[in-house]
Amino acid sequence: MGQGEFDIIARYFTHDAQRSEVLLSVGDDAAVVAPPAGKRLVVAMDTIVEGIHFPRDTAPEDIGYRVLAVNLSDMAAMGAEPAWMTLSLSAPMADEAWFAGFARGLLELADRHRVDLIGGDTVKGPLVATVQIAGWVESDRWLTRSGAQPGDLLFVSGVPGEAAAGLAVIQQALPATPAAQHLQRRFLRPEPRVALGRALRSIATSAMDVSDGLLTDLDKLCAASGCGARVDIDALPLSRQALEIFPYDACVDYALAGGDDYEMIFTVAPARLGEALAAFAGTLPDGVSCTQIGVVTGKSVECWRAGRPFIPGRRGYDHFAPHSTPHLVQTEPRS
Amino acid sequence: MGQGEFDIIARYFTHDAQRSEVLLSVGDDAAVVAPPAGKRLVVAMDTIVEGIHFPRDTAPEDIGYRVLAVNLSDMAAMGAEPAWMTLSLSAPMADEAWFAGFARGLLELADRHRVDLIGGDTVKGPLVATVQIAGWVESDRWLTRSGAQPGDLLFVSGVPGEAAAGLAVIQQALPATPAAQHLQRRFLRPEPRVALGRALRSIATSAMDVSDGLLTDLDKLCAASGCGARVDIDALPLSRQALEIFPYDACVDYALAGGDDYEMIFTVAPARLGEALAAFAGTLPDGVSCTQIGVVTGKSVECWRAGRPFIPGRRGYDHFAPHSTPHLVQTEPRS
Repeated sequence: MGQGEFDIIARYFTHDAQRSEVLLSVGDDAAVVAPPAGKRLVVAMDTIVEGIHFPRDTAPEDIGYRVLAVNLSDMAAMGAEPAWMTLSLSAPMADEAWFAGFARGLLELADRHRVDLIGGDTVKGPLVATVQIAGWVESDRWLTRSGAQPGDLLFVSGVPGEAAAGLAVIQQALPATPAAQHLQRRFLRPEPRVALGRALRSIATSAMDVSDGLLTDLDKLCAASGCGARVDIDALPLSRQALEIFPYDACVDYALAGGDDYEMIFTVAPARLGEALAAFAGTLPDGVSCTQIGVVTGKSVECWRAGRPFIPGRRGYDHFAPHSTPHLVQTEPRS
Repeated sequence: MGQGEFDIIARYFTHDAQRSEVLLSVGDDAAVVAPPAGKRLVVAMDTIVEGIHFPRDTAPEDIGYRVLAVNLSDMAAMGAEPAWMTLSLSAPMADEAWFAGFARGLLELADRHRVDLIGGDTVKGPLVATVQIAGWVESDRWLTRSGAQPGDLLFVSGVPGEAAAGLAVIQQALPATPAAQHLQRRFLRPEPRVALGRALRSIATSAMDVSDGLLTDLDKLCAASGCGARVDIDALPLSRQALEIFPYDACVDYALAGGDDYEMIFTVAPARLGEALAAFAGTLPDGVSCTQIGVVTGKSVECWRAGRPFIPGRRGYDHFAPHSTPHLVQTEPRS
């Protein structure tokens, strides 16, 4: 069905304003925002592409949800309060139901986090969605990747690897057992840890979200901090549901190298462990916590298992890297 | 050539910092900016797609230049001072020369306008580039589409239609005469009217940039202002170079409906004409000015020519609209 570009934005992407600092929203050449006094602006931008970040037959609701979730996860990693976003949507055709579904998934999550959609662009083209998100952080401190110190405790939120296992469930069309449905949902509907990031803002020494795989992202955090880390494989929280379906080694691989979890890794000085534990309890949903999986060391990221060095089969995903494992990887289910 | 995603950003998209308000730039989960006191943040986002906004064999320098130019043009239309941007680049392969060229075109224009690249995302996928730009405007006033009043004078900057004529030159591979080269450059290297927009900030009653065609965009400005306009076709500045190559009627069509000019349309109350003329003289390059092409009226946008109503063949481009003329339209050259 034919549909004008401007009608699309007005018709599907309008939602109730969430933020008083937005002075002019969708509909002009640009939006206008009044920065709150004493705050810093935190800005991130992430793009998802059909067939690379999500399978070709993903529901439009899940795509809309995802493009915002991956950006909210960057706000979490900085300890910022998300506030507003702009959307660029390239889509091959104008299908009313598709746009309505995409907008529903996007705006449902936006409203939950009080994020205003203040502008953007829709163009005809291959299916590529980009959100640029911005939030506010108190001017005294925000989280970065670069503050980890040797001796700090290394934590991960939630259960890494469930998203990669969920993608395998989808790609292999495995039977829809409760475990399979749980994993699938963890891939399709990652929960950005915004409240956790806010609470860790003045507690953690460094933080980062896990999008490309725990070890790959830990490598980046350690490089930014000029340190290393020792990861204790036996301490890794493995997914009970993934273990029902996939072999143990595949579950370890998903946890270490599976992308798309949008959990957080972060480091805490031992003296502040009590404050960190209180932050976990106060900000995470029931049944979700954070687990210490290692410590920060002087240099290089090493894994240990049963008291010995352990070399993982792969570390994660890097676009454009030679011979990189693609996001949409398949692993055989437990036979 | 294989190339890691993070290397690509670090290697090609690093340039000297232009703005003291950028506290943390490329390299973490997000960037951090300190908003200057007394300013409002102005935010826009525009996307360009290969085969839709530029021909498939466009040089990477020109694509990098273009994706920023179209965004700077939105800053101009708001009267804002551009300050920083984020980039999302989806590209099908990692070719060193391509990335280097794209970055050169982008950053050359960024440095000229003192815009910092503070973050973004590169992914493997179809060729789609998005820039989200932000700038600052004094808190007392910015330009919008919505302030035009009946009786205001309607202006356009520069020579609309040259970009569309230049695209026709490229698509038809016309001989590289000086006129053809001038037009081609006007398509490939549009000059966003940032200084003009800054000067008009407290003079014009409304403003908008012309991206989809003069009449289509004027329709939007008038809809936002709740008014109409009368456009005098005989007053339209037509391109001398386009007239050398294409028939008169095609040149009028390019001027009224050709997209991609990134000139500005704006309205000025008659009492402030003197100030407007001074702004033109003080902000535009040699040989470029603004032309009054009509007046704001009570309702509907009408064209007149030689004292009679004139119905143009087309008004411009709207993505997703039924039967819309694509951007990459061809018109036969003068025989």
